[in-house]
Amino acid sequence: MKEVYDLIIIGGGPAGLSCAIYAGRAKLNSLLLEKSAWGGNLLFTEKVENYPGFFEPIFAYRLAEEMRKQAEKFGAELKEEEVIEIDIRGKEKVVITEQERIYRSSAVVIATGTRYKELGVPGEWGLVGKGVSYCGTCDGPLFQNKEIVVVGGGDTALGETIFLSRFAKKIFLIHRRDRFRGTKVLQERIFALPNVEVCWDTVVLEIKGVEKVEGVRIKNLKNEKEDFISCAGVFIFIGVKPQTEFIRKLIKLDEQGFIITDEKLQTSQEGIFACGDVRKNSLKQIVNACAEGAWAAISAEKYIEEVKNG
Amino acid sequence: MKEVYDLIIIGGGPAGLSCAIYAGRAKLNSLLLEKSAWGGNLLFTEKVENYPGFFEPIFAYRLAEEMRKQAEKFGAELKEEEVIEIDIRGKEKVVITEQERIYRSSAVVIATGTRYKELGVPGEWGLVGKGVSYCGTCDGPLFQNKEIVVVGGGDTALGETIFLSRFAKKIFLIHRRDRFRGTKVLQERIFALPNVEVCWDTVVLEIKGVEKVEGVRIKNLKNEKEDFISCAGVFIFIGVKPQTEFIRKLIKLDEQGFIITDEKLQTSQEGIFACGDVRKNSLKQIVNACAEGAWAAISAEKYIEEVKNG
Repeated sequence: MKEVYDLIIIGGGPAGLSCAIYAGRAKLNSLLLEKSAWGGNLLFTEKVENYPGFFEPIFAYRLAEEMRKQAEKFGAELKEEEVIEIDIRGKEKVVITEQERIYRSSAVVIATGTRYKELGVPGEWGLVGKGVSYCGTCDGPLFQNKEIVVVGGGDTALGETIFLSRFAKKIFLIHRRDRFRGTKVLQERIFALPNVEVCWDTVVLEIKGVEKVEGVRIKNLKNEKEDFISCAGVFIFIGVKPQTEFIRKLIKLDEQGFIITDEKLQTSQEGIFACGDVRKNSLKQIVNACAEGAWAAISAEKYIEEVKNG
Repeated sequence: MKEVYDLIIIGGGPAGLSCAIYAGRAKLNSLLLEKSAWGGNLLFTEKVENYPGFFEPIFAYRLAEEMRKQAEKFGAELKEEEVIEIDIRGKEKVVITEQERIYRSSAVVIATGTRYKELGVPGEWGLVGKGVSYCGTCDGPLFQNKEIVVVGGGDTALGETIFLSRFAKKIFLIHRRDRFRGTKVLQERIFALPNVEVCWDTVVLEIKGVEKVEGVRIKNLKNEKEDFISCAGVFIFIGVKPQTEFIRKLIKLDEQGFIITDEKLQTSQEGIFACGDVRKNSLKQIVNACAEGAWAAISAEKYIEEVKNG
């Protein structure tokens, strides 16, 4: 006979950790499962300066660690396991992990976040947080008066380039095609910016740097010519992928795979909630992920209370 | 000729401060106006232990101070003035303060929050944060195994009593009438709780205590008898009042006076946004107020960008 939790939270980024803090304080017996590293996408940033409450920028790994310890303090059980399936056929939700363990609960919160699509070029992985970034709002102000490279051509890439142009001395916007996918009005603004130079038909071959980004090796796909751009930062906006593979048959997703929720953050399945970046329409900011975690915990608490009281 | 701000934020609680942080980082030229104390309702709590990111509980006034300094660091201008009117007849928004000053801006964010309704009895004011509380989720866990008094009879009072019953050894629920206003299902749960005693037809005359709450003097309205209850905490849930008097003719409010917003947090007036406790349907938690502040700043930024680009 396995123990039955009140709540199982899947994903240990800011949303899941905040959810665990709130669930713990509400005295819910809860289990938090994370497949790799506590902190989620937070760990893709070096220092956080826009999370309200920290006048001095805080290291991202430290912020994650504070939240993790806080969740534990309030009684959440934390385990490093990857969830591969949720079975809802019985009265309780059954969560199955890659480690072949089975957990049961009254309610489930999905906070698995997104994964940034990577370029997959040499140098990228090792320089994350050292000049390679996937978030302009987070890291843009660190590149005041510096030269940077932006990679991408969709709405996110164009919007972030406009934002980054307020800080950077010069931006090289690298796009693999000869036109942008992003909306016209954003394109026009990009073309009007004096400090943005678009490199069409171009791909990044490699990101160079030892301790910090020093530049990128690029190649023009039309004339096959290679070149080198010196820069302090490389911002990559080629898309994100919500981590919803394991529930795509169970829960209603939008076209891109983000989870659709109602005003209680409940998904299409009763008693299963979603919060943070994995949710359709969520703002991709740490404080917003935390807020949604709190919100999901409060909704789950009400749901569990109702279930218990028949 | 007065200077024109990009953004004027009204209200210096967590929502307004977070909005100023985000506006500042987006390089908006912004002004933040607060009528009394930086931190808003946050200052009604002594220590905060559920704001994600602080393993050790942080003093509420310190958290507020960190946010205030953070907003200033990113360039927001902070002034202590009370807004009495917003005039939207011209191209720019005109904000008028009690101090008879006039400020202009492209966009406005309203983050004026709510005011807890107070009992208005002797001892209450001086013991706020020393046992007198207006938020169960915030302060409940501080009263583990203690005896407490709850005042009220609506949904909030009943819901919070159920929540508080998980911590307190004993709760005296004081209500001035002979039945509750709150929903039936909540009432039934209250009656089933072994550690809750309802005191009908009763009012609080005085809260006693020097450094901390020691008890309350009560009076039964039916038989006019007075009594004293020893307790460590007094939770008061007799309602909140959104601070929207000054804009009630300008902006669409719900019946209780909360501001109605769309999915961008825009109010019924273009270019005027609302965030935090003053907004209809907002969760009354610090992290949620901060998240909405960030969200309103991002929406306002897009609005200002559109206005500037014709």
